[in-house]
Amino acid sequence: MSIVGHFINGKTVDAAERTQDVFNPATGEVSKQVAIAAKDTVEEAVAAASEAYKTWRNTQPIKRARIMFKFKQLLEDNAEKICALIGEEHGKISHDAMGELTRGIENVEFACTAPQMLKGEHSRNVGPDIDSWSEMQPLGVVAGITPFNFPAMVPLWMFPLAIVCGNTFVLKPSERDPSCALLLAQLLQEAGLPDGVFNVVNGDKVAVDTLLTDPRVEAVSFVGSTPIAEYVYATASANGKRCQALGGAKNHAIIMPDADMDNAVAALTGAAFGSSGERCMALSVAVCVGDEAADTFIDKMSHAMKDLKVGAYTDSSNDFGPVITEAHKNKVDGYIASAAEQGATIVVDGRDPKVAGYENGFFVGGTLIDQVKQGMTCYEEEIFGPVLLVVRAESMEQAMQMINDHEYGNGTCIFTRDGEAARYFSDNILVGMVGINVPLPVPVAYHSFGGWKRSLFGDLGAYGPDGVRFYTKRKTITQRWPSSGVREGAQFSFPSN
Amino acid sequence: MSIVGHFINGKTVDAAERTQDVFNPATGEVSKQVAIAAKDTVEEAVAAASEAYKTWRNTQPIKRARIMFKFKQLLEDNAEKICALIGEEHGKISHDAMGELTRGIENVEFACTAPQMLKGEHSRNVGPDIDSWSEMQPLGVVAGITPFNFPAMVPLWMFPLAIVCGNTFVLKPSERDPSCALLLAQLLQEAGLPDGVFNVVNGDKVAVDTLLTDPRVEAVSFVGSTPIAEYVYATASANGKRCQALGGAKNHAIIMPDADMDNAVAALTGAAFGSSGERCMALSVAVCVGDEAADTFIDKMSHAMKDLKVGAYTDSSNDFGPVITEAHKNKVDGYIASAAEQGATIVVDGRDPKVAGYENGFFVGGTLIDQVKQGMTCYEEEIFGPVLLVVRAESMEQAMQMINDHEYGNGTCIFTRDGEAARYFSDNILVGMVGINVPLPVPVAYHSFGGWKRSLFGDLGAYGPDGVRFYTKRKTITQRWPSSGVREGAQFSFPSN
Amino acid sequence: MSIVGHFINGKTVDAAERTQDVFNPATGEVSKQVAIAAKDTVEEAVAAASEAYKTWRNTQPIKRARIMFKFKQLLEDNAEKICALIGEEHGKISHDAMGELTRGIENVEFACTAPQMLKGEHSRNVGPDIDSWSEMQPLGVVAGITPFNFPAMVPLWMFPLAIVCGNTFVLKPSERDPSCALLLAQLLQEAGLPDGVFNVVNGDKVAVDTLLTDPRVEAVSFVGSTPIAEYVYATASANGKRCQALGGAKNHAIIMPDADMDNAVAALTGAAFGSSGERCMALSVAVCVGDEAADTFIDKMSHAMKDLKVGAYTDSSNDFGPVITEAHKNKVDGYIASAAEQGATIVVDGRDPKVAGYENGFFVGGTLIDQVKQGMTCYEEEIFGPVLLVVRAESMEQAMQMINDHEYGNGTCIFTRDGEAARYFSDNILVGMVGINVPLPVPVAYHSFGGWKRSLFGDLGAYGPDGVRFYTKRKTITQRWPSSGVREGAQFSFPSN
Amino acid sequence: MSIVGHFINGKTVDAAERTQDVFNPATGEVSKQVAIAAKDTVEEAVAAASEAYKTWRNTQPIKRARIMFKFKQLLEDNAEKICALIGEEHGKISHDAMGELTRGIENVEFACTAPQMLKGEHSRNVGPDIDSWSEMQPLGVVAGITPFNFPAMVPLWMFPLAIVCGNTFVLKPSERDPSCALLLAQLLQEAGLPDGVFNVVNGDKVAVDTLLTDPRVEAVSFVGSTPIAEYVYATASANGKRCQALGGAKNHAIIMPDADMDNAVAALTGAAFGSSGERCMALSVAVCVGDEAADTFIDKMSHAMKDLKVGAYTDSSNDFGPVITEAHKNKVDGYIASAAEQGATIVVDGRDPKVAGYENGFFVGGTLIDQVKQGMTCYEEEIFGPVLLVVRAESMEQAMQMINDHEYGNGTCIFTRDGEAARYFSDNILVGMVGINVPLPVPVAYHSFGGWKRSLFGDLGAYGPDGVRFYTKRKTITQRWPSSGVREGAQFSFPSN
Repeated sequence: MSIVGHFINGKTVDAAERTQDVFNPATGEVSKQVAIAAKDTVEEAVAAASEAYKTWRNTQPIKRARIMFKFKQLLEDNAEKICALIGEEHGKISHDAMGELTRGIENVEFACTAPQMLKGEHSRNVGPDIDSWSEMQPLGVVAGITPFNFPAMVPLWMFPLAIVCGNTFVLKPSERDPSCALLLAQLLQEAGLPDGVFNVVNGDKVAVDTLLTDPRVEAVSFVGSTPIAEYVYATASANGKRCQALGGAKNHAIIMPDADMDNAVAALTGAAFGSSGERCMALSVAVCVGDEAADTFIDKMSHAMKDLKVGAYTDSSNDFGPVITEAHKNKVDGYIASAAEQGATIVVDGRDPKVAGYENGFFVGGTLIDQVKQGMTCYEEEIFGPVLLVVRAESMEQAMQMINDHEYGNGTCIFTRDGEAARYFSDNILVGMVGINVPLPVPVAYHSFGGWKRSLFGDLGAYGPDGVRFYTKRKTITQRWPSSGVREGAQFSFPSN
Repeated sequence: MSIVGHFINGKTVDAAERTQDVFNPATGEVSKQVAIAAKDTVEEAVAAASEAYKTWRNTQPIKRARIMFKFKQLLEDNAEKICALIGEEHGKISHDAMGELTRGIENVEFACTAPQMLKGEHSRNVGPDIDSWSEMQPLGVVAGITPFNFPAMVPLWMFPLAIVCGNTFVLKPSERDPSCALLLAQLLQEAGLPDGVFNVVNGDKVAVDTLLTDPRVEAVSFVGSTPIAEYVYATASANGKRCQALGGAKNHAIIMPDADMDNAVAALTGAAFGSSGERCMALSVAVCVGDEAADTFIDKMSHAMKDLKVGAYTDSSNDFGPVITEAHKNKVDGYIASAAEQGATIVVDGRDPKVAGYENGFFVGGTLIDQVKQGMTCYEEEIFGPVLLVVRAESMEQAMQMINDHEYGNGTCIFTRDGEAARYFSDNILVGMVGINVPLPVPVAYHSFGGWKRSLFGDLGAYGPDGVRFYTKRKTITQRWPSSGVREGAQFSFPSN
Repeated sequence: MSIVGHFINGKTVDAAERTQDVFNPATGEVSKQVAIAAKDTVEEAVAAASEAYKTWRNTQPIKRARIMFKFKQLLEDNAEKICALIGEEHGKISHDAMGELTRGIENVEFACTAPQMLKGEHSRNVGPDIDSWSEMQPLGVVAGITPFNFPAMVPLWMFPLAIVCGNTFVLKPSERDPSCALLLAQLLQEAGLPDGVFNVVNGDKVAVDTLLTDPRVEAVSFVGSTPIAEYVYATASANGKRCQALGGAKNHAIIMPDADMDNAVAALTGAAFGSSGERCMALSVAVCVGDEAADTFIDKMSHAMKDLKVGAYTDSSNDFGPVITEAHKNKVDGYIASAAEQGATIVVDGRDPKVAGYENGFFVGGTLIDQVKQGMTCYEEEIFGPVLLVVRAESMEQAMQMINDHEYGNGTCIFTRDGEAARYFSDNILVGMVGINVPLPVPVAYHSFGGWKRSLFGDLGAYGPDGVRFYTKRKTITQRWPSSGVREGAQFSFPSN
Repeated sequence: MSIVGHFINGKTVDAAERTQDVFNPATGEVSKQVAIAAKDTVEEAVAAASEAYKTWRNTQPIKRARIMFKFKQLLEDNAEKICALIGEEHGKISHDAMGELTRGIENVEFACTAPQMLKGEHSRNVGPDIDSWSEMQPLGVVAGITPFNFPAMVPLWMFPLAIVCGNTFVLKPSERDPSCALLLAQLLQEAGLPDGVFNVVNGDKVAVDTLLTDPRVEAVSFVGSTPIAEYVYATASANGKRCQALGGAKNHAIIMPDADMDNAVAALTGAAFGSSGERCMALSVAVCVGDEAADTFIDKMSHAMKDLKVGAYTDSSNDFGPVITEAHKNKVDGYIASAAEQGATIVVDGRDPKVAGYENGFFVGGTLIDQVKQGMTCYEEEIFGPVLLVVRAESMEQAMQMINDHEYGNGTCIFTRDGEAARYFSDNILVGMVGINVPLPVPVAYHSFGGWKRSLFGDLGAYGPDGVRFYTKRKTITQRWPSSGVREGAQFSFPSN
């Protein structure tokens, strides 16, 4: 069985004391092994990045950007191959994998703006004949730790920008679907990136802790669940690093009585069930204002869900695939069961769908639950499965209060046609990414991604302008030139003091 | 004896279970008592700030800025009074206090740019008929913890900007010189700031720890020594807050053989001894390249030091005053003694200067030490006294290597007339604030302040553009409007779904 | 009778070969004479500005800004005096004059951001060891030519920003109400502005043409009617100057059937009749979509107009005052007459209102005209009087087409509650300043003012970021330092070639 | 003989009433004919652009940018072909043509940043519950008129940025070397650009005047000689268009006594003679400070010039090729003759060089003239040939005065090792693009190009941030939403007024 190794200093490194199973979630079978890095393997990657930094730091920004121009091309040329890898290890259907890759490529496109984005600010005459300017210099070695649910996109949020800013990078992708990161590394090399600038180590907590404590690592970008995000942020910070740690979510959509209901249903079908709900921007709670809106919504949504097809990534007519592991399938099923036990109504039950030929796959079908209330387990926790909860609110104020009370504040949206309702909502909701009739308000690559409350630890969001600021440190130079006699020309020889 | 209290919710709060002595460092006598806040006093301040936030957040930026316009006027009108308070508790001579205040007022002037600086970014057509924009919204309650050495300036780095961005503020100034902060609070109130937006609590570790752990405090700005900065950063981060913690420094000046030596000596006299060297931007190490430069420098500097006058703040002809406490005086004297013991040469010994009429003051005179080397205690640690070390380097490379090897990276400068030397230096030195023939390269208020290495923990510097980013969080809205029939005009009544 | 003179090089200059009457439009009487500058008087002002530029250019931006901080204070302290002057010569009621002044002061506040706004862009390593940066340098002498309708605000759009950017300025205000500009000049001097930096010349076409052709004038900002704007733009451009020339307007409000009609009526009452409609942002055409909306609007508006009070500026309970001259009163009356002749319906006729005690004043009362159509003189031309036209459209598309067909494109607005209608409108309307339920969408001072089509000639708008760009020219420096041996330290003497 | 036609609405248009000869300047022979557009052909192109604008304007910026990403690839893939066309019609040697193309591609890379660069500014709460934002919208149809000397680069300064901002474009390239523009048009089409967005018309003054007066053309970018630039600016402005017109130059290098002379000579060899001096950034005057510097410079330069090879583009070992036409050759020769007549010393005379096999080519060899003085024809006018003048100055002040007195202010540079001299020079010189030890200080594509004085008419420079501003107009929206009852939820039906 093939072993997925590491990529260090421009070379694939296969040796590993320990390995772990990689499953095909559609079949439920182990398809590969992934190497689990020991501390010294991670340190080797850090050392390679550290060494490569010395020259990469001084490579002109436009030359760094040109590697990203080439990398974009290669990603487009290899799109099918990348999507197949994603499907095989993550289970995502090809159209969804392509969507993920496209959002990732957008970040590479943004990285191509580096010469523009790295500009510092210059002030003439901050004092008499004194000028001052800032330079946004790279940090050194930075690390990225990324989750299983977007094996291409989330790494692409991080390393293209970090690298184009002049840093070198060590990526620890999810050990559930590690192959994609290695392919990205090879394409970067093909695009002309010098060895050591980008490295991949596969591993578990040992690798993570090494990255969080190694003094040569200057910064850490993390995306994952909130408890781990919190641990990463506290640990990296206690080790003097800058850190941004993105955690979990519970994204609510408010459905107002004046909403275009067909539009809302269509939008939420994709936002709730796409990628089996394994997205930190998945819309997992619909808060309907008024029973009339709720009844209409449930009626139309349960109809729409009849057409949903769950299945293996190999059939692109499927809408979504399995969840990532058997354990996770059981957890999602458990949330559904708990909802029923705690008084909610299962309108559409997606547990144990029949997927012919894939009887051992980790499938959960689209599930719709009505009469959900604050306090229920399914409401308070992030399910990360194809489960849409419906909460009934008496007023928009009540709906907003629920959202503001929830510990997470990643994304949210409202469906309305009313300008005033939309503005009041976006202004007062304590959530970082807000959609108005847009169910998945993921900012485009030239804006920045960042939740509020316990969805993001740190002061700067991921990618876009915040990403540039995160991956650079400011140096401010203040300059005055004393006369040397050269200009005055009284003497052309060098003045002695 | 008068008690310096707190300022909470627009009122001076005098009661305190505990108090601590405040000294006049020029006389060595206790002049006042300062209240030491208990946990619940701090919580009361946080509660006031929390309550005030609700309306302050929605006050238009231009109205917030106009309070800063008025505050600037009041600071100018009350400059003498502020400087007298600084002199009395800190010991700084009036011209130096006025310099500090002027730099502080610059930050108030920068705060007046808030309507401009708070602009978000708007993108039309991020998707078909979809627009997206960002808003830089305030955080909520933020805390500032400030050191004794700039009782006006460092608080003014923080709260005007934090407040004008829409936050409310709790300041814990140094308990060594607490009165200035209270006067600033009164002037702000006079300028029209609503009660509760700015609060001051005096205290010790109890107050600090309360601010670092109270969940209602969203962010912490700290300036102080590196060990405390590290503690503050780790603790605030572990409590999920954003934090910027500025620590200590050991700022080197490289003196090149081609330098304008008279200029360098004049510049360093102020930069090394001004404010008794109690500045995180004090220039405390002169690295002379070549023995000829070193000999000339020492000769000229020891001459110049003969004119230095140390004494009480009440006589404005003095150059600098006492250090802050008796304990600190003993510590500085001890560093001088250790230098001699470890092999350095005391060229000018400032220990126990005669200051007529102030025999019990905490004075240390200007001190110059030659033949200092890496590894000596006086070189490795921050002295924070009027002590200038001279290190002799054989080459510019060697001089730069010393700077890059030191744990601190706050400020540095080079004296040269040579364009290439200056550019090589500023490009390759691992220090955040670089002067070229400028000995104290403190960025002006519209740039940002931030050291590198163990001089700053966090990703964003103090004040200027970084300050605005630190005191705001990004909200990104993505908007699409479905047709409602209103525009098409087919029907003028409200469409039913 | 007193003569209003010029202000040149810090001194009031009274002598004039020619003078012209200044009227009090409320009484219809001549109250003063204004000096009409000959060519050489204007040239004297340009010479003074030219000379002052030499040192002003190098004055630090923050010092220039501090004069504006002080100027703001003085404007506030002298607000009543300024408003009285405006009332006396322009006829504006004191609340309206204060509104004008407040918007003007906003521009002084924005000018205080100069140190921030003047920052250039710095790029490290545009080539190997090559850096490049831009500086936004002042132009030199710039001229402003301003209209009668905002004797304080429009000059304040221009000179504070031009001056704070490092330029010197010659203002030619309207000869109808020249006194305000002179008072501003005196306050600037009191604020500390060096002589010659700001100059005022009163005059007519001779003065204008001198400014447009003098080679020492680098740029011209103009606000006035479109034919003159066009002349100014063509002439200044043909003389190699940069120019921005703001002209006339015909601002339409679309009233949708779903609008909050009371809100729309209240908003339009001020926007149509305020300042007698003598504003380039006056809302002078209401386009009602559907007859129902039109009928309701006219009913409510004609009711509201009953409370409108027209009268002298001395009574602050008046809503608006006279128009500027007798000739202009006759012109406005003529437009009303022509409307009736061409088939429109005069719903409220404001001609020849009774204003007790001011029988000779140039008054026109609020006028409402229904059934206005494209092609009518009153529709095609700018009336600049208190006349609101109502046009009936069958659909929003038709309403928008009218606006897009009109030669002017300054401001417009829509009244609706519908998000989609608002977005479609703002996206597709060919007008530079758009209001959504905001009748006078004048951008705030930190944004920029600029119409489209024949309402603005030039590429940059007035004030705000565009203003800064207009009043500065870019200098880009590219720098590389060859080795001189100083850094390498091989030799400490100056290298011979 | 083949006819070079136009490219209109996606199709090559060959028909032409009139044609003109296109020469191969190396052989002196006519190689092609170029069609000379009649007025209606130009109008057809404008009409096509006008029609295409309707949908292009609404194409998402990122989709427009992606065509530029693809275009960059195609330019790289077709580099040899492009360079061959340039050589054939312009005479430039292949390495120089490749340099030109590379700078052009940089502008395409910058155009890829459009989604970032087009961001407007958003302000929350400019008034109570009122928001305001700006959008940088396209202008419509814009025209570019470009010179013979950079048949690829100068068009690439303009149209990629104009197009990516949402405009459509009509290019009128030089009729001397028209083929390159047509190839660029084809590659754009291949990259996916819709028909009509980019059009090329070949022609003469008829075409130019049509573009300058057609009301559908909103803006004109021009690069050429100063008299024509002035005509274009005045005419376009008088027709109400925005215009930027870049004219001639006379770029001086100051050579200070402390300069690295070998570096200066090497740099000036390329900057003075490269591309036969037919560059608006060519360095054509060396001002040596002090006779010693002058003598050394002339000695080293005349030596260096011995290695210069002039010849046909087909031999890439040549340093530069012929000038563009026989008339131009005669003009350059005439300037050399006049220099001798007016008292200057011809140190190296490049007239009538022997180029074996190309006896009829329009060649002028590298020429060096000493003792040039202000007032001489060769000094006052732009030669646009491979001629380097040496002026001797007694001091840096005198050298700078000459530069500041000259009518042109495009580029300049100084050779020195002294920080103070460099800063004084760059701060006080009245030239828009300044080099410090950089002979051709052409700003990189992410900065902007713009001379001062009579080298640029208009307020915004070419390409970079200024280019984006030039090709967009600001729309500012101010928005307030009145309550509709939808949010309050009291009623879910539509409220009647």
